[in-house]
Amino acid sequence: MPDPRGILERCDALARHSELAGGLTRVFLSPEQAAANELVIGWMRDAGMSAKPDAIGNIVGRYEGERPGLPALLLGSHLDTVRDAGRFDGMLGVVSAIECIADLAARGKRLSFAIEVIGFADEEGVRFGSTLLGSRAVAGTFKRELLDSVDTNGVSMRAAMRESGLDPERIAQAAHRREDVLAYAELHIEQGPVLEAEGLPVGVVTAINGATRLAIEIEGFAGHAGTVPMNLRRDALAAAAECVLAIERRCGGVPELVGTVGKLETLPGAVNVIPGKVRFTIDLRSPRDPERLAAMTGVVTEMQAIARRRNVALTVSKTHEGGVANCAPWLQEQIGAAIAAEGIPVRRLPSGAGHDGMAMIELCDIGMLFVRCEKGISHNPAEKITAEDAQTGARVLLRFIENFRPNAG
Amino acid sequence: MPDPRGILERCDALARHSELAGGLTRVFLSPEQAAANELVIGWMRDAGMSAKPDAIGNIVGRYEGERPGLPALLLGSHLDTVRDAGRFDGMLGVVSAIECIADLAARGKRLSFAIEVIGFADEEGVRFGSTLLGSRAVAGTFKRELLDSVDTNGVSMRAAMRESGLDPERIAQAAHRREDVLAYAELHIEQGPVLEAEGLPVGVVTAINGATRLAIEIEGFAGHAGTVPMNLRRDALAAAAECVLAIERRCGGVPELVGTVGKLETLPGAVNVIPGKVRFTIDLRSPRDPERLAAMTGVVTEMQAIARRRNVALTVSKTHEGGVANCAPWLQEQIGAAIAAEGIPVRRLPSGAGHDGMAMIELCDIGMLFVRCEKGISHNPAEKITAEDAQTGARVLLRFIENFRPNAG
Repeated sequence: MPDPRGILERCDALARHSELAGGLTRVFLSPEQAAANELVIGWMRDAGMSAKPDAIGNIVGRYEGERPGLPALLLGSHLDTVRDAGRFDGMLGVVSAIECIADLAARGKRLSFAIEVIGFADEEGVRFGSTLLGSRAVAGTFKRELLDSVDTNGVSMRAAMRESGLDPERIAQAAHRREDVLAYAELHIEQGPVLEAEGLPVGVVTAINGATRLAIEIEGFAGHAGTVPMNLRRDALAAAAECVLAIERRCGGVPELVGTVGKLETLPGAVNVIPGKVRFTIDLRSPRDPERLAAMTGVVTEMQAIARRRNVALTVSKTHEGGVANCAPWLQEQIGAAIAAEGIPVRRLPSGAGHDGMAMIELCDIGMLFVRCEKGISHNPAEKITAEDAQTGARVLLRFIENFRPNAG
Repeated sequence: MPDPRGILERCDALARHSELAGGLTRVFLSPEQAAANELVIGWMRDAGMSAKPDAIGNIVGRYEGERPGLPALLLGSHLDTVRDAGRFDGMLGVVSAIECIADLAARGKRLSFAIEVIGFADEEGVRFGSTLLGSRAVAGTFKRELLDSVDTNGVSMRAAMRESGLDPERIAQAAHRREDVLAYAELHIEQGPVLEAEGLPVGVVTAINGATRLAIEIEGFAGHAGTVPMNLRRDALAAAAECVLAIERRCGGVPELVGTVGKLETLPGAVNVIPGKVRFTIDLRSPRDPERLAAMTGVVTEMQAIARRRNVALTVSKTHEGGVANCAPWLQEQIGAAIAAEGIPVRRLPSGAGHDGMAMIELCDIGMLFVRCEKGISHNPAEKITAEDAQTGARVLLRFIENFRPNAG
């Protein structure tokens, strides 16, 4: 059985490799990441795997099956973090998979397929602003023009790779061939409050939600807060407030659709000036693309009506659009069976956050197992899971691995 | 008749004395103000007045009546500006009054009372953060502890006065005695859109509105925009949006009451994070104190209900409270009669903005005449009036002066 203390201790050990003292920040191709990679390679080897960095800096450990060279079930998650991160987002998936392999190896158990555990070098995209760099390289969809992107110090990704001893000309070598891969399965903390609210330690992910992001600008007319009567105002903030509530209402009416206005600023932004301009963001996500796109159209139409009625100008710019990455039903089935075998009710839920599966789906079918986290807090030093849930997650993952049957279809 | 070109040209000339090139900023006790003061003193003397700075740096011009030493009708406005100001806010009142005296002097006309035209040295309070310094000194209500306040360069008001050749120990000498004063009347641009909306060049001010300012903080719970279902959110911005609309609705329902949320910020303020905290300001004004105070209570009660329903914490802090300064009915009557005599309908309206009358009311009865400005724009380089309106304003002011009868009551 995987050791829960081992899992949490390893997450703690990884968290010590940080750009910040007293916090956790570890970005793509940093010295901290190199140190964390060394640790992971050592753990993988101790767990009976061959292990090494690939061409983009992912750490890949391989546990052969009954004979060498069999197609592999891919497991893993990412080893990079956001700024001032928690210690489970990403790392828990890598560490749990290593613990499972260690358990198999200790029992001398070989399966009818190989297993590869991958610690992706970049999922969060903090350093260069583009996410999923590691998993895109593995899926063979890494865009070479990204090598020219620069970090805030003006260092290009190409230069940073060379400095880390990686050859940017050889990135394509990180790509896996479809025939060598059976599926990709990832264990990850939920980063949301659903499992906690329902008293469940784990759940099966149905899909990684599609997302639309919009940047909105409302232009009314600034004026003296004391001198302009209410009926002569064109208050950009009052219009924006109606939009915020319209978005909340629209998304509240559709299961699993979420809509957020995360950032809103008033201009000029003084206590005695009616806001002449307001800028805000909208983030819409759903496990079903048509519902997300309908919500986007609906919200924009409602905002246009609000703007017309209030005689303010509305500008809508789309800043991001990404479709749903569905988890394969056959993998959901097998992950669900592993949960049920632990005596836990099988809760299916979408993932509102993005994950490496969004890139891996270009290579193979994907599945995900969520582990409960405290209050849904993530991307925050307060991110927390219990040792019991870490153990339950690893037990379910191990059971899934041992009972894994490649898709017959 | 006062010369409208003279009025606008003098406003232009004053606007050239600015801290900024290509803009207008002129603060209390600055070299720019000293230069503007020289100009005003020259104009006053040319218009037949004796003129000099008083103990706080106000410029006071006196036009004697039928015999020297008679009680005076005080006219005027302020000569300081906000940052990046327009050229009429304040200055128009000083310049128009000088034009009126010049017209009387040219005709050799003496009245049964003296006239003093005051260019106040500080109304806006930009440099030391306290407003109405000049008019408070004249009214005898200047608080000596203000001498210790410092500007952004750390220079105290006391030191700045000395540097300008003024003796801070002698400020009390700027105060007028009640028996020497008949009334204070000020011509000022409206700084709001009411007269323009009704096609009127001038209006009679009924009161300078009282104001309450509140600082509000709403604390909900931050979370990942993708992972927290709508029904599990405690979104601080959605709660704030309801508050903004409640304030608008409450104030829209009461004539001449205004309520503004001028500044609102979301924390942490990221596209993919549900706002955990929102801070915003409320500015409530009314020409009737009980209505303003009732609105404040009503708005706070409504916000508390919103916070309770949404399970977020609401904190309300009062940052400012000032009562109404009513314009004396007998002065409203005489200003109205002067407007009517020009064949213009008499529109009575409150002043949403603050003015020197708020301090002068401690000394004597106050009256105000508003002049239309373009789109209500003020505190902005785009502040604009027409030459025709400048002339109408000065004609009404002159007629008011010539027909002025001290309060019999």
